[in-house]
Amino acid sequence: MFICFEGIDGSGKTTQIKLLQEYLSQLSVEHIVVREPGGTKAGEEIRRILLHSDFRLQPESELLLFMAARAQIVREVIRPALEKGLVVLADRFMDSSLAYQGIGRSLGIEIVSTINGFAVGSTIPDITIYIDVPATEAVLRMRKEKKNDKIEVESLEFFEKVRNGYMKIIREKLDNYEIVDGTRSMTEVHECIRNIVDRFLQRFRLNGR
Amino acid sequence: MFICFEGIDGSGKTTQIKLLQEYLSQLSVEHIVVREPGGTKAGEEIRRILLHSDFRLQPESELLLFMAARAQIVREVIRPALEKGLVVLADRFMDSSLAYQGIGRSLGIEIVSTINGFAVGSTIPDITIYIDVPATEAVLRMRKEKKNDKIEVESLEFFEKVRNGYMKIIREKLDNYEIVDGTRSMTEVHECIRNIVDRFLQRFRLNGR
Repeated sequence: MFICFEGIDGSGKTTQIKLLQEYLSQLSVEHIVVREPGGTKAGEEIRRILLHSDFRLQPESELLLFMAARAQIVREVIRPALEKGLVVLADRFMDSSLAYQGIGRSLGIEIVSTINGFAVGSTIPDITIYIDVPATEAVLRMRKEKKNDKIEVESLEFFEKVRNGYMKIIREKLDNYEIVDGTRSMTEVHECIRNIVDRFLQRFRLNGR
Repeated sequence: MFICFEGIDGSGKTTQIKLLQEYLSQLSVEHIVVREPGGTKAGEEIRRILLHSDFRLQPESELLLFMAARAQIVREVIRPALEKGLVVLADRFMDSSLAYQGIGRSLGIEIVSTINGFAVGSTIPDITIYIDVPATEAVLRMRKEKKNDKIEVESLEFFEKVRNGYMKIIREKLDNYEIVDGTRSMTEVHECIRNIVDRFLQRFRLNGR
């Protein structure tokens, strides 16, 4: 079972994944967490170029680097874990490229989809949980927490564009999406996510209880 | 004017580019040389991952990293140089990906072409000079010169596959290709390349004489 978390920077994905991890551990559901870009040796090197380098990346190059890290983690980590029957929680996956590079950077949805397909093959999430937060709130949170990697420092307009991008993607992939209101309290959001995951665990008969 | 050099590792591209550079300098033809992967800050970092890292890259990831470096150098170096009227000599470009990753790594010509198109946009070589050398000879040369980056240490079978790949590509793009027999002496190969380039300089009216 492959669960993916999506949302703009500052939406609370990483916190929520941590809470879900604790919950899965309580249920003795074996799982791993992967984050993009990164999670493999190659991926961590690519992450450094993408988020912490001091030179400007061309949007096309940025996209291709994200994809390279993805192609690596899919084959090196995600597939082997899924084959062993583990639950995989991904902090971002294919749809981040669609929203951020395809729409945010205006590279176009079609070519990003094509390259996504090449990078991941048949390994696609069973369910994607989108944590929705208005761009204004997300930017406020990031400033407060002094988050400042190369993407986190983008403008409010950029994150508004990305959020609209997510909305567009979700309209086309409704069946595989669960939308969670990320403006509520951390605990409320967690509860909502737990309900979604419980439902899926039951469907996949992975719930130990 | 954009001249690209292609051929398997050990075919003598780099030596021939140096000789051509000297010739162009004698003619006072302003030019730059770019090499793939590399040639930009991002590209050099990517080069290190591709050729000198100690972990195994997935073929898909390898391709996407080459493409990321290409997308960067095209926009940062090649296009601005061509716009200024310089001659650009490229030590490898799009067709290396077709031959090495598309055919050598069996990723397929079609998807590699699509990603190439995304990476380079409208910036394609005016002429590609392919230096042809049998794989056995190329491998012998590389062993002699102790060349040992991650691609140079591939098997004879791999380089045979890549050479066949080039042959296939050339059959489809004959108009834009010049094939040079790389088994002849360094001076003979240079003379042959000089003739090709002279013809093109005249066509582009860049020959100062």
